[in-house]
Amino acid sequence: MLFLGLDVGGANIKAALLKVKGRKPVRLEAASQYFPLWKAGREKLPKALRMVQFELEPKGEIAALALTMTAETSDVYQHRREGVVHVLRCVKKVWRGVPLEVVETGGRLIAPEEAERNPLKAASANWAASGWLVSRLLEEALLVDVGSTTTTVVPVSGGKIKAKGETDLEKLSLGELVYTGALRTSVASIVEKLKVKGRLTRVSSEYFASTSDVYLVLGEISPDDYTVETADGRGKTRMEALARLARTVCADLEMLGEKEASNIAYQVAVKQVSRIAEALNQVFQSHWRQGWKRRLPVVVAGVKGGFLAEKAARKAGFHNIIEVDELAGFKISRILPAAASAFMAADKAVGGVNLKG
Amino acid sequence: MLFLGLDVGGANIKAALLKVKGRKPVRLEAASQYFPLWKAGREKLPKALRMVQFELEPKGEIAALALTMTAETSDVYQHRREGVVHVLRCVKKVWRGVPLEVVETGGRLIAPEEAERNPLKAASANWAASGWLVSRLLEEALLVDVGSTTTTVVPVSGGKIKAKGETDLEKLSLGELVYTGALRTSVASIVEKLKVKGRLTRVSSEYFASTSDVYLVLGEISPDDYTVETADGRGKTRMEALARLARTVCADLEMLGEKEASNIAYQVAVKQVSRIAEALNQVFQSHWRQGWKRRLPVVVAGVKGGFLAEKAARKAGFHNIIEVDELAGFKISRILPAAASAFMAADKAVGGVNLKG
Repeated sequence: MLFLGLDVGGANIKAALLKVKGRKPVRLEAASQYFPLWKAGREKLPKALRMVQFELEPKGEIAALALTMTAETSDVYQHRREGVVHVLRCVKKVWRGVPLEVVETGGRLIAPEEAERNPLKAASANWAASGWLVSRLLEEALLVDVGSTTTTVVPVSGGKIKAKGETDLEKLSLGELVYTGALRTSVASIVEKLKVKGRLTRVSSEYFASTSDVYLVLGEISPDDYTVETADGRGKTRMEALARLARTVCADLEMLGEKEASNIAYQVAVKQVSRIAEALNQVFQSHWRQGWKRRLPVVVAGVKGGFLAEKAARKAGFHNIIEVDELAGFKISRILPAAASAFMAADKAVGGVNLKG
Repeated sequence: MLFLGLDVGGANIKAALLKVKGRKPVRLEAASQYFPLWKAGREKLPKALRMVQFELEPKGEIAALALTMTAETSDVYQHRREGVVHVLRCVKKVWRGVPLEVVETGGRLIAPEEAERNPLKAASANWAASGWLVSRLLEEALLVDVGSTTTTVVPVSGGKIKAKGETDLEKLSLGELVYTGALRTSVASIVEKLKVKGRLTRVSSEYFASTSDVYLVLGEISPDDYTVETADGRGKTRMEALARLARTVCADLEMLGEKEASNIAYQVAVKQVSRIAEALNQVFQSHWRQGWKRRLPVVVAGVKGGFLAEKAARKAGFHNIIEVDELAGFKISRILPAAASAFMAADKAVGGVNLKG
């Protein structure tokens, strides 16, 4: 049987096609489409969804589609209600005839009609899908998923999701959501000042460079992992990334040289890792005692095997770090909410998939 | 005689047409054109310049055009050299036949050929024009010009410009340049956390709202002063600005209400004023003794009579605050570098304009 998990974000659409034999998951295919909703406009959403549908091309009928989304937070919608209803409508249109269910913030699947009646239950529930998957694999864990744009932190305790925030607003205050990511975050939103040529220098507030440039220069990601647009529309070579980083202090490579510009990357990374680590500690402290820190499994996911989640976890003082791919036995790190949604759909359909192998 | 001052920025083109009788300035007309170079592209620059030319429509021949620029810092150019040469070329094409001079960082006018040979002398020299004007009116002063995008701080002492930074990079480290402004600055580049419903909440890193929204909501600017694009392409009413501010913490007005959303504006303003005040103090301390603080005239300019420059000056502990319009006797606050360039051109042509009236 085939199950589709779909994660419609504001900058990326991600999908996971899961094949299940009996109760056993046997194959997982992924598709991902960069789709900057705020630029492309809402009317282009069905077309982008069709690209994802085309990329996956399932051999056989899809038994169920489980949908999760964050696209409703985009400013192309007046409020989330409008966004949820629009995304639902577009998905129904593209996967016409496929039974649709929607992830809700309680970590369950609900009917699309219920999601339309209570749009806030379906809004930004992608973390609940990811948390559900981890809670099926570990009794106690902290999940950290650092995506291209945002970071999700989900505490799992006693085999249950223990997140306290119901809306993104609450999550931002609790450390369960940090609006910072490994690819698309503006350097100007991370650092106020940088040390350049030995002097503390104010940073430009323009979108001159992104975290993609930072991690490309630091060798954490390759040009192929750099799946978002560059800030200046130029290329994804190391030198082009360095030039963008130089511009964050109103300089260029002629003025700074390679070494000073890569030093900018290093400083931005240190600051970003600290911010994520701070959130991890905030969530940890409201669920576990300090003594747990060395033992608590921190499940990391996101861009490039969750490299940034891992750095943040180490910085926060955790020692037991597990990549989600190892844990689940499938390559799901980069598309975690989509994959988790597919597992949720399968689990519901077959009455409990066999996740622990 | 007519003199044109032209300030070609990366987001706005500003012009001042100055009429001089004998040695006396008698009239000043201003034109301003919102031109987001990084979006419109460099090939549209001549057209935008023609709009400014058309808006001013001088009755009579222009005796000299003094040009200053910051557009060369835009990422449509690989480095400033390329930018300076391109801007010069476009201005020459549009004002063909008008004698052209270029403001250089030493506060003098140079020939366009010299500017092409030494592009970095002409790059971002707009502060030098403004500083020159103030140095002709006051012996000791701190000039603070808070524009839509950036803030310029120029120390004047002994009737001379005493700025120490030669490039924008150096200025950012010295406090002579702060890349923050009254209209176009992203809220995400100013605050990392905001108090919302009594809880410290992380802020989204997206460009969801700008300082225009902040100061519109606080009643400091009117929708007419809101001369830049809105972050979401929606309107410039108070309610639309509040909705954008709510989105900076991933909320909407349905969730927050008007009062919480305007509280966001207040917190962002406090932080932005502090940052500018910090720069003022940094510049002040490297030129004057502490005892000077109450006496030193701080000349304020920029958006809406330099309201933000004035707030920052008060926050930094200055008492003797003068609006540049009062000082110069013309409405130049909003277009200070362009007006100052026009005065420079006139001064050079007539052998010293009579500025002190």
